Amino acid sequence: MREVTVSGYLAERLRQNGVAHLFGVPGDFNVDLIDGLLAGGQQRWVGSPNELNAGYAADAYARRRGLAAVVTTYGVGELSCLNAIAGAYAEQVPVVQITGSPAAGADGKLLHHTLADGDLGHFARAYREVTAATEVLTHERAAEQIDAALAVALETSRPVYLSVPADVAHTKTDAERLATPLRTTHVDAAALAAFANAARNLLKAKDGQVTVVAGHEVERRAATRELRALVEAGPLPFVTLVSSKGCVNEDHPCFAGVYWGDLGVKSARHAVDQAAVLITVGTLMTDVVAGAFTARTEPAATIDIRGTSASVANQTFDGVPMRAALAALTGLASEYATLPAAGLPASAVLGYRAEESHGPVTDALTQISLWESLEEWLPANSTLLAEIGTAFWGAVSITFPPNTAFLAQPVWSSSGYTLPATLGAGLAEPVRRPVLVIGDGAAQMTVQELGTMSTNGLAPVVVVVNNAGYTTERMLRSPDASYADVAPWNWSGLVRSMAPHAHTYRATCRRELRTALAHASAHPDKMVFIEAVLPAGDIPPMAQRLAATR
Amino acid sequence: MREVTVSGYLAERLRQNGVAHLFGVPGDFNVDLIDGLLAGGQQRWVGSPNELNAGYAADAYARRRGLAAVVTTYGVGELSCLNAIAGAYAEQVPVVQITGSPAAGADGKLLHHTLADGDLGHFARAYREVTAATEVLTHERAAEQIDAALAVALETSRPVYLSVPADVAHTKTDAERLATPLRTTHVDAAALAAFANAARNLLKAKDGQVTVVAGHEVERRAATRELRALVEAGPLPFVTLVSSKGCVNEDHPCFAGVYWGDLGVKSARHAVDQAAVLITVGTLMTDVVAGAFTARTEPAATIDIRGTSASVANQTFDGVPMRAALAALTGLASEYATLPAAGLPASAVLGYRAEESHGPVTDALTQISLWESLEEWLPANSTLLAEIGTAFWGAVSITFPPNTAFLAQPVWSSSGYTLPATLGAGLAEPVRRPVLVIGDGAAQMTVQELGTMSTNGLAPVVVVVNNAGYTTERMLRSPDASYADVAPWNWSGLVRSMAPHAHTYRATCRRELRTALAHASAHPDKMVFIEAVLPAGDIPPMAQRLAATR
Repeated sequence: MREVTVSGYLAERLRQNGVAHLFGVPGDFNVDLIDGLLAGGQQRWVGSPNELNAGYAADAYARRRGLAAVVTTYGVGELSCLNAIAGAYAEQVPVVQITGSPAAGADGKLLHHTLADGDLGHFARAYREVTAATEVLTHERAAEQIDAALAVALETSRPVYLSVPADVAHTKTDAERLATPLRTTHVDAAALAAFANAARNLLKAKDGQVTVVAGHEVERRAATRELRALVEAGPLPFVTLVSSKGCVNEDHPCFAGVYWGDLGVKSARHAVDQAAVLITVGTLMTDVVAGAFTARTEPAATIDIRGTSASVANQTFDGVPMRAALAALTGLASEYATLPAAGLPASAVLGYRAEESHGPVTDALTQISLWESLEEWLPANSTLLAEIGTAFWGAVSITFPPNTAFLAQPVWSSSGYTLPATLGAGLAEPVRRPVLVIGDGAAQMTVQELGTMSTNGLAPVVVVVNNAGYTTERMLRSPDASYADVAPWNWSGLVRSMAPHAHTYRATCRRELRTALAHASAHPDKMVFIEAVLPAGDIPPMAQRLAATR
Repeated sequence: MREVTVSGYLAERLRQNGVAHLFGVPGDFNVDLIDGLLAGGQQRWVGSPNELNAGYAADAYARRRGLAAVVTTYGVGELSCLNAIAGAYAEQVPVVQITGSPAAGADGKLLHHTLADGDLGHFARAYREVTAATEVLTHERAAEQIDAALAVALETSRPVYLSVPADVAHTKTDAERLATPLRTTHVDAAALAAFANAARNLLKAKDGQVTVVAGHEVERRAATRELRALVEAGPLPFVTLVSSKGCVNEDHPCFAGVYWGDLGVKSARHAVDQAAVLITVGTLMTDVVAGAFTARTEPAATIDIRGTSASVANQTFDGVPMRAALAALTGLASEYATLPAAGLPASAVLGYRAEESHGPVTDALTQISLWESLEEWLPANSTLLAEIGTAFWGAVSITFPPNTAFLAQPVWSSSGYTLPATLGAGLAEPVRRPVLVIGDGAAQMTVQELGTMSTNGLAPVVVVVNNAGYTTERMLRSPDASYADVAPWNWSGLVRSMAPHAHTYRATCRRELRTALAHASAHPDKMVFIEAVLPAGDIPPMAQRLAATR
C-alpha cells in the first residue's frame, strides 16, 4: 500500500480542488501540521498577521476559486477566525478551517491554549454553530473524515472545520484513495425530469412574462454560463441583486437592472413586478438584499433553483443541482418567448446613479462624485471589492464594465472584511487587478493585510474613504455620538510603513481623485493607495433609502 | 416606582463594581444599547478599531479593577471578541461581554449579521462554551438577569455574556433594585471552622516546614494583603509562579523565588520540595505554568485555597472564600513557625537571571542584555506587560522592583494580547505607567491600539522586539521555515502615523536601548516606542529550558 501522511493527504485533496495557497498563522499546536501540509509543494503558504484576516482572505479566495483553506492553531487561533468562518457560512462560501490541535489523548490535561478545565471539545462545539461539518481527525479514519468534510463543503458551498491533532498530522494513511476524485454533486435523473415537467406546467398555467432573478449562488455554483444560456434562449429579462451584481455582464441585452424591491430602480422593479412567473436562481433574500423586505415573494408563481435542489411553486425536487436545473429550463425555451429577440430596449435599464438627483457638477469630492469618478475609471476585468457601509452602496449604484468580479458581504456584513479579501482575491486570480473601496473605520479593523499584500507582490488599487468614522452608525442614530469617531491616522505614512513600494495619494477633490486613478492605470504593477477625503455626514443615496426604512 | 432603562440599569451596576470605562465597537445592532449605556454618564466610551482588541483591553482592565465590560454588536462583533473572552475564562478574569442583538421576536427573519437561517441562538451557544453564564435579556426579567450574570462574574472571576436585544435596551425596569448591592461572596461559618480545624490537624500531623505557593488568583481575588499577613505570621517562605510573579513584592524577606517545577530556580524548588505541607493559594498548574508538568503535586500534604472553596488533603470545604481561608490560616500561626523570624537568608533567593550563564559583557543587544537593561531601568510602580513568547520568558527571569503589576497570559497564551492590554491597564490605573514588551509578530496582530492609546492620552513605554518573526515557532520546529517570518514593517513610521505625538527609538545595541529607556523616564507624559532589534535565532534561557522538554 502506498502511504502518505494525513497532512499530505489533505494538501493533495485541496490541490485537486483548486487550492494553490494556504492562508493562516502558525502556532505551537499547528507547526507539525503546516510542515506536513507544505512538504509536498501543493500549496504556497500565505501568512497573515492574525487569524481573522487570514479567514477573510480565504473567503475571498474561495469565492473566486471554488475552495480555500485557512490554517490556525488550537484555541487562540481558531477562535480568532470564527467570525470569518461564520461569514463564509452566511454568504455560502466553501472555506476549510483547519486547526492544529493537541495530540489525541490529551483530554483532561491542563494545557495552555485551553480553558484549563480538561475539556478539549469547547472550540469544536463553537465551530459546530457556524459550519456545515466539523471533524476532529483520528488516527484510524482521518482520510475518510477529510473526504467527508470536503465533500460537504463543495456540495453545500459552506465552510467546514477540520481539527488535526498534532500526532495525527503525521500518521500514515492510504494514498491510493487519492486516485478517486471526491464525489461530485449528485443528479437524480427522475427528480430532474419531474422538475422540468412541473416547470413546464407552471409556465403553461401562468402564461405570461417570465423574469429571471439571479442571486449570489449563481457564481458560487459556477453556473454563470448556464444562466446566460437560459436568458438568451427565451430571451428572458433578468435582474441581479445587490448580492450578485455583475455575475453577468451588465451590458447584456436581457439585463433589466439590479433588483432591490420597492427601494430599487424602476426597470428591475418593473421586470419583476410584471412577471407572471419568476425564476429565482440561488437567491437569499435577507433584509438588506431584499430592500428591507420589500422584494416580491410569491412562491406559487416561482421556480426556485438552489444549489442542489429546485422548487416549482411549493413542490421541492432534491438531487437537482443548479446547473442541471438551468439546462432543463433552457430546454423549455419554446414555452416563454415573451421578450423580443432584440432584448430589452436599451433605454429601459436605468442604473441607480441615473435615478439619483444630482446637483451641478463641481469639483467637490462627495459620495456621488466619488462613484461617478470610479464608474468612469473602473477598467474591465477588475475585481471590485466594496466594504459594507457607504462603499457598498456606492458600488452597487454604478454600472460595471464587462467582466467585473464583485466581492462584498451584504448578508454577513462584517466590517473590515474586504481589506483581507483583497489579498485573497489577488492571489486567487492574478490576471485581475483588485480594486478595493473601504471606509476608514473598516480599514482600521484589518489594516495589517496591506503589508501582506506588499510581501506577496500584489498591486491592488486601494481607496480608503476617510470620513473620520463609522458613517453607517452615524446614519442610524445619534449622528454626533463620539463613539462613531475613529482615531485619526496618517494614512500615507501608515501605508508606506507596511508597503514600502506602494504609491500613495490623498484626494480632497474630484480632480485629485481622477489624477490618482489615472496614475493607478499607468502603474498596473504597483499597489496604489488613495485616501479620499469626504465629509463625515455625506451618505450615498442608496444607503439613505435603506436608512429611511428603519 | 422609580424606573430606569435596562441599559441604564446595567451601566449603574457596572459603576457600582468599579467599571468606569466601556470598551467596544459600535455596530448597527448596538447603537441603541450604547446610547442607553452612556446616557447616565457612569462610564466613558473607549472605542477600539476591532472587537478582539477591545476584548483584550477589557481583560487587562478587569485584572486591575476587578471587573470590566466590552460592548459589541451581534454576530460579526461578538464573534470577533470570542477569543478574548475565552482567554478571560482560561485566566479567570471577570469580563462582561455585552452584545447588542436584534429586537426580541426577530427569530425566523433573515437578517444581516445572522447566518440567514432564522436561528438567532447560534452565537449565544458559542459563548456558552467560553463563559460562566450567558443571558439573553428579556423585557420581563432583564434586571434580574443582569444581576445574576454579574454576580456569577464576580463570584467565579470568569467572563459572562449578556445579549441585549435592541428593544430591551430601552425597556424600563425598577430602579429601586439598584439600592441593594449585588450579593457578595458567601462565607459559610461552619465550613470555615471545619476547614480551619482540618488544616490544624494536617499541620500537626505533618509537623515540618510549611511553604506557601501564591498563584494567579491571589490578585484576582484581591487577597494580596491576606496572603502577606499569612506568610508574615509564620513567618513562612512563599514562592510565586510565572503566572503570579510580583503579586507580592519580591524584596519581601519571606520570598523564596518563582517556582517553576524542576525547570525553575533552586531557591524556589528547595522551598517547595522540602515542605512538609504546601499551602497553595489560587494556583492553576497548567503545562507552561507548572514547568512542563514538573511541579510538585501532593494533595495529601496540601492545603489548597481557591476562590470560593478550600481543601485540606482530599477534603473540600465549599463556602470558604480565599480571604476568609487565608485569615483562618493566619490564625493558626502558632502551628508553624518553621522559618526564622528574620526570614530567608538574603542570599538564598537566586533569580533566573542570576542562574543563567552569561558571556562577557558586550554592547550587543540580545535576549539576555535586553532584559538586563530592562531590569536595571524598570521603575517601581509600573505595570509590566510581557507578551507570551520570548518577552514573557525574559520578564519572568528578572527581579521586579517594588509594587510592579505584572500582566501576561501564560495559560491562554494568545499572541497579540498584551498590546491592547496596555490600553486597558493604562485606563484602569492612571497612576501606573504601562511598560509593554512584545515581539514583532505579536505586535502586528493587534497593532491598531497604538492609535487608541494615543487618542486616549496614554503614555506607555512600548518595546517591540524586532527579530523578524515568530521566535517560539522557530524554536519548536523548522527554524528556517518561511511561515515563521512576518512582513517587515517600518515600525517608527507606523507608530508616528497612528500616534503622532509618540517618541520613537530604534535600538540595535545595549547602549542605544539604555538611551531610549532613559529618555522614556525623562518623558513620563509621552508614549515612548522603542524598536529593539535582536537576532532572529536568539531565545531567552527560560524559553530554551521549556523547549528542551518537548
